[in-house]
Amino acid sequence: MNLHFLTLFPEMFTGVKESSIWKQANDKGSATYTITNFRDYTDNKHKKVDDYPFGGGAGMVLRAQPIHDALQAIPRTEKERVVLLCPQGEAYTQKKAEELADADQIVFICGHYEGYDERIRTLVTDEISVGDYVLTGGELASMIVADSVIRLQPGVLGNDESAVKDSFSTGLLEHPQYTRPAEWNGLHVPEVLLSGHHERIHEWREKEALKRTWQRRPDLLEQKELSEREHVWIKEFEGNN
Amino acid sequence: MNLHFLTLFPEMFTGVKESSIWKQANDKGSATYTITNFRDYTDNKHKKVDDYPFGGGAGMVLRAQPIHDALQAIPRTEKERVVLLCPQGEAYTQKKAEELADADQIVFICGHYEGYDERIRTLVTDEISVGDYVLTGGELASMIVADSVIRLQPGVLGNDESAVKDSFSTGLLEHPQYTRPAEWNGLHVPEVLLSGHHERIHEWREKEALKRTWQRRPDLLEQKELSEREHVWIKEFEGNN
Repeated sequence: MNLHFLTLFPEMFTGVKESSIWKQANDKGSATYTITNFRDYTDNKHKKVDDYPFGGGAGMVLRAQPIHDALQAIPRTEKERVVLLCPQGEAYTQKKAEELADADQIVFICGHYEGYDERIRTLVTDEISVGDYVLTGGELASMIVADSVIRLQPGVLGNDESAVKDSFSTGLLEHPQYTRPAEWNGLHVPEVLLSGHHERIHEWREKEALKRTWQRRPDLLEQKELSEREHVWIKEFEGNN
Repeated sequence: MNLHFLTLFPEMFTGVKESSIWKQANDKGSATYTITNFRDYTDNKHKKVDDYPFGGGAGMVLRAQPIHDALQAIPRTEKERVVLLCPQGEAYTQKKAEELADADQIVFICGHYEGYDERIRTLVTDEISVGDYVLTGGELASMIVADSVIRLQPGVLGNDESAVKDSFSTGLLEHPQYTRPAEWNGLHVPEVLLSGHHERIHEWREKEALKRTWQRRPDLLEQKELSEREHVWIKEFEGNN
């Protein structure tokens, strides 16, 4: 998968693209990264990428032309996505990550500080927001999306890593985990986990995952079909509320 | 504000902390960044930071001791927050960013690949999730939170930048923006924006912001008190649906 980033701050990507899973995926031939400063594609001699908004108002607006021309310079592929990072985009989810992971190329358009000329939206296949908060630019958001997609490429995660249950694929938050020592700082590991009784451990984990989700993210439960047993457990939690 | 990052991948922060607003805030004395590899704080000779989960199962679990000791090495401050980045955390929002921006020090704990020993949660003031998707580690998530907090520090954003209306502070998505040329690629700027009629421009923008939110993020409208006029507009949108 080719990952292209169009940005005014190419240096922001330096550390990330050479670390951890980004590096592993690149070493294995599963992902390539191209960082392009779209200022190089302006058609004016001052290399201006933004301009004042029509209709007045504070703030600058990113011009459509440099983005358009930078996109033109990237060879098209069969299963390509062009992603605009912006607060007006669709809320990013694990389901969307799985959808994007199927592309052979993703181009990320990262604005910085300012708004986009509306006509830039005609150049993209997807508009994505990583969350309801304000960032200085789209760069970190694009890294978030890329990271979530890179780890889904076949063969990128080792067995140990991929086996970690993903919170958002089961529809529940993960159950509590403990490792050695059994007592640390006066805090003890729950006895059931030391019991060696696999069935009880499994049940405890299922119940704790449900409980944590019920406590912290009840919105996730609304989207999930619950089993008979899970309904009983929730009644129990409600009693203890 | 002191920003500390506890991570196993310090090199991921290199480009980001030296760019854009991070650099500006540091140059102005508004923010300092300390990146600590918490592997340096393990109390065993193999510098192991993780171990097998009690109760069995795939995946490794981050030990509490190195995190605890790395935290101990950071001088406490009066208005300190210790943030654990994790999928089980509270959903990050602009409101939370404003709350964190008031701290004098934030320590971010970034896991990578694996789960946390539950007892690590006893060491933190906040658990944050930046969104419902799976990342390789907490590093990018911590940069997202830090970026949103740095830009809120007094004097960090210039006038032009801070004047840009933030999508999530008004409760609506931003209205469309256009800049020169008035016609580009066969696409025209809406005439009202060229009219010079300030009142009409203002009304057009308010209506378009509402329309975009109604189309793309109806969930935001549920949390907002609407004016009489906004109710009329929404009826109009519904008729055109």
